[in-house]
Amino acid sequence: MHSVIFEPDGRRREVPEGTTVLEAAQAASVHLNAPCGGTGLCGGCRIIIPDDPPPPSENCLRILTGEELGRNLRLACQVRVRRDLRVVIPEETRLGDQKILTDGVGRPVALEPNARKVTVHLPPPSLGDQRADAERLLDALAEHGLGDLAVEDPVLRRLPERLRSLDFHAAAVVLGNRVIQVERPTTGEACYGLAVDVGTTTLVGYLVDLVTGETVAVASRANPQTAYGDDVVARIEYCGRQKDGLKRLHDLLAGAINEITAETCRRAHVKPSAIYELCAVGNTTMNHLLLALPVDTIARAPFVPASAAARWTLARGLGLRAHPRSRLYAAPLIGGFVGADTVAVILATGMHERAGLALAIDIGTNGEIVLGGRERLLACSTAAGPAFEGARIRYGMRAAAGAIDRVDLADGRLALHTIDDAPPVGLCGTGLIDAVAALLEAEVLKPNGTMRAPEELRERRCALADRVVRTDSEAAVVLASDGHAGLAHPILLTQRDVREVQLAKGALAAGIQVLLDLYGATIGQVETIYLAGAFGNMIRPDRARAIGLVPEVPLERIRFVGNAAGAGARMLLVSRSLRRTADDVARGVEHVELGQQPQFQARFADAMFFPAPHPTGA
Amino acid sequence: MHSVIFEPDGRRREVPEGTTVLEAAQAASVHLNAPCGGTGLCGGCRIIIPDDPPPPSENCLRILTGEELGRNLRLACQVRVRRDLRVVIPEETRLGDQKILTDGVGRPVALEPNARKVTVHLPPPSLGDQRADAERLLDALAEHGLGDLAVEDPVLRRLPERLRSLDFHAAAVVLGNRVIQVERPTTGEACYGLAVDVGTTTLVGYLVDLVTGETVAVASRANPQTAYGDDVVARIEYCGRQKDGLKRLHDLLAGAINEITAETCRRAHVKPSAIYELCAVGNTTMNHLLLALPVDTIARAPFVPASAAARWTLARGLGLRAHPRSRLYAAPLIGGFVGADTVAVILATGMHERAGLALAIDIGTNGEIVLGGRERLLACSTAAGPAFEGARIRYGMRAAAGAIDRVDLADGRLALHTIDDAPPVGLCGTGLIDAVAALLEAEVLKPNGTMRAPEELRERRCALADRVVRTDSEAAVVLASDGHAGLAHPILLTQRDVREVQLAKGALAAGIQVLLDLYGATIGQVETIYLAGAFGNMIRPDRARAIGLVPEVPLERIRFVGNAAGAGARMLLVSRSLRRTADDVARGVEHVELGQQPQFQARFADAMFFPAPHPTGA
Repeated sequence: MHSVIFEPDGRRREVPEGTTVLEAAQAASVHLNAPCGGTGLCGGCRIIIPDDPPPPSENCLRILTGEELGRNLRLACQVRVRRDLRVVIPEETRLGDQKILTDGVGRPVALEPNARKVTVHLPPPSLGDQRADAERLLDALAEHGLGDLAVEDPVLRRLPERLRSLDFHAAAVVLGNRVIQVERPTTGEACYGLAVDVGTTTLVGYLVDLVTGETVAVASRANPQTAYGDDVVARIEYCGRQKDGLKRLHDLLAGAINEITAETCRRAHVKPSAIYELCAVGNTTMNHLLLALPVDTIARAPFVPASAAARWTLARGLGLRAHPRSRLYAAPLIGGFVGADTVAVILATGMHERAGLALAIDIGTNGEIVLGGRERLLACSTAAGPAFEGARIRYGMRAAAGAIDRVDLADGRLALHTIDDAPPVGLCGTGLIDAVAALLEAEVLKPNGTMRAPEELRERRCALADRVVRTDSEAAVVLASDGHAGLAHPILLTQRDVREVQLAKGALAAGIQVLLDLYGATIGQVETIYLAGAFGNMIRPDRARAIGLVPEVPLERIRFVGNAAGAGARMLLVSRSLRRTADDVARGVEHVELGQQPQFQARFADAMFFPAPHPTGA
Repeated sequence: MHSVIFEPDGRRREVPEGTTVLEAAQAASVHLNAPCGGTGLCGGCRIIIPDDPPPPSENCLRILTGEELGRNLRLACQVRVRRDLRVVIPEETRLGDQKILTDGVGRPVALEPNARKVTVHLPPPSLGDQRADAERLLDALAEHGLGDLAVEDPVLRRLPERLRSLDFHAAAVVLGNRVIQVERPTTGEACYGLAVDVGTTTLVGYLVDLVTGETVAVASRANPQTAYGDDVVARIEYCGRQKDGLKRLHDLLAGAINEITAETCRRAHVKPSAIYELCAVGNTTMNHLLLALPVDTIARAPFVPASAAARWTLARGLGLRAHPRSRLYAAPLIGGFVGADTVAVILATGMHERAGLALAIDIGTNGEIVLGGRERLLACSTAAGPAFEGARIRYGMRAAAGAIDRVDLADGRLALHTIDDAPPVGLCGTGLIDAVAALLEAEVLKPNGTMRAPEELRERRCALADRVVRTDSEAAVVLASDGHAGLAHPILLTQRDVREVQLAKGALAAGIQVLLDLYGATIGQVETIYLAGAFGNMIRPDRARAIGLVPEVPLERIRFVGNAAGAGARMLLVSRSLRRTADDVARGVEHVELGQQPQFQARFADAMFFPAPHPTGA
């Protein structure tokens, strides 16, 4: 038996004499790129045998260049183990060893993170090898397929002392084309990143192990900027009004992200200093507030941000806690209010690669809509979302314990369900949709959204007639009354609440129609509708369709993709090539400014109506 | 007559109807690349006509791609002026418009600076053109051939306000691939760089106009680190001994460079904030002290620096005064003590491109030697220089007023010359060489360097016999005695001084011989000897050869190249492609550690002898 050590990850395997290195690698669960199956034909399984490599086989001579042979490259399938062996697997060969980030929502993506930790064993300097410390380190990293790097200044200042104290065995953290850290090799496995979906209302952070691609902890926070305005326009106005307003909103956001970092790290037993890169997706305003860029030109015509391209910035400079030399990758924006979160949704759904026509609707505080496929994509933003997040709804609330999240019509009466079966406190987004759908089905609401008077309902023998009351000079439906166990106050759905729902779903529906018009397509041609957003998975599609929140399509065409923006952020965190795709997508998507579309107002007016009730609802 | 405006530099010329754009450019002194002489054959004179370009000629259709035609590219020789015209000259076409940095010492180099200031006139944003501010600017810069840029964070934070206050007419400073400044277009011409030759004893700074390539002011300072040691080893030891020693030496150096910056700027009426890049060349120790990198591993075996590659660092982070976003380019090192100043000497002499064998000797505080040509270059460092800078010589001094700078033997007697004809104060490097040469010629000195006793000299009827005295237990020659007008003290050349000269020239000669041995060549095969160094131009070659400071070759093979390191620094400041050459040179030169060469001690012992006097000197 001989021992084979595979670098850079240092796995070791005892194998019998005569085993090929490829077989030894398979036995050690080190997956090499070997499309021809180890027959010496394809040249995929290039490896390096640094010390005293065996003479090249005929296939090696045929496939490898003289320069490659000189660098001790061989084909793993062609080398038989005759003694203890150290084998270095170059980057290109490891591509076959791609780990997959799978996610219920996002798509699989090859693990190719921008931050990598590589263990290197450097020959100590001698009079026969006077290479400078930095070049010694970079040469070793190049042997691992990481070429064209530079050592960052603060690392270089400590490098001579550090390398000598570690006897020239070290773990180097490579971020992009920079070496940002050199530490003891025992930390070799600890290499993390944080993906953040920066929403106007909610922040969600995912701590990702960059070695395995797995998400090891998730945490969320309300966006503390909400205290300065529910929506982005209010926050932009605050920045214009208040000296230091931009700094204050930036600091609040950074502070909340730091809380998420702390919480995810605590839960996963990870030091925040082992986070080497952060990836943020957010709409244009959130992106700029996070990057501390001026926002005032975003909110007034012609709605121009300071910068749309992806940014890569020292995290510490933005007040973000992680490794001191870590960077924040802020994904690119599309235009106007349509930001990186929409890019992330496109990447997570894969609609930019599909031949067929798809529609993505991301309902957050704003509602973003994307229509198209591989050839062409259109996107717009509507001020559609906050109603479903509880804003501007009399008893609206977020999806928390006590929120009415489901409303059914059973024998003409309302049946409520609350989160955690707690006594009802208010109405969350799904409950709001359900309630409106139920009241439409019961014909308490007319298709134009007007609530029928109790008298009319009694005439129509509607079982809900007694629930319609008049309060504060407007009509309302009592969803839960004082009689309900433990209820502090009755929970009403008011006429104004219904109008908010109409405005929200009308803006979305009008946006969809405008994009279809511009694309020259009809809703019938759309093969898939992706419904994204924090509460998307909770929506019951028939109810959403009943109120016209989603178009009139067969239900099987609707796919709930949950927090696709967060999934896209994680994909971007672990894949450098996907970042290039993101640049292309962000530049390629046609941004439609709805306010500038002559037909938008008419479409909006039409879309305020609810669909006629389905026959089954009669 | 029609008006033609050439961008990016905005030159304007009135030309008659029907003139070609190429002719108009020539009339406006805008030099386009047109190797075929304007016959439409070569495609060199590509220009962009942004507004309403004329239909392409047959030659345009033949040479330009559809994509290029779509970008409004045309050939300047094929477009005739029929109306007022705005013409943009892309980078690649301007390459023919190379301005030349000529210098008595350095070689001509195409002006291709890393820092450029470009005037752009941006279309203001509108609902039909919602590009973000940064992309708007970058698109305009790309039109000028500057693609793949990013706007640095501090610039981006102020960009929206800045562009609007300037009505979208601006001058952008592009440094490398970054936009580091956006300012009023009226500053368009002010774009400067500072090249610094960081010597162990002397610092020389050159303020260079990056638009014309001209050096507009030069200033020098003694290296204030000298207070902590004459030579690099003493300074390295100081850093090891003294806490904060590295910081102190760094700060002294940065302070002296800032004085040079202030002085050159004052003399040329330039604001220091218009300096966008600095370029420094120095030996390994000076390089590291300037970059605030640890030096302790340089001075002890195996003599390994922290980093050898070129560095590009925020100047402000090193305490250097210039534009706040400016960078310091520190040229790459060769190895051991042989640093970027030697790379600069190689580039300035061009020996790396020559087929024939050349030898460069750079005599500063250390003496660096380079031998070779296009195929192979060897370099070493010797502790050879300080004697010629006045160190360790009893009445040694730098070349200043009152220094004896020339000593001749006239009718067997000494004839002295002092700088500024002032009363003699001491002996500078050239005077030292001359004095030794004269005393060898008069046979006051034996070939082994020993001073003959007065008695022996009288026996030999030597006219200088009376000048040989005994002082402090050693022999000495009185060069200038108390009788000399205004002389404070007699000026002696002592036996120990002669030994110092022997050590210095012996180390150089031995180094040269070791390199020749390793190269497998003889001194007779060397076509050119470049003698570089601050005092090089002052040396009289026959005297240098008489004492064995330069090898025994015909005098016409010796070329004095003065401060070739400073010339190389200026070439590197203005040429990005030369920086890539510098990387190749620095990596390619074989560094020879003389102490490790078995034959060095024997060569050194041999080389301590002076050459036999030439027959003419009998």
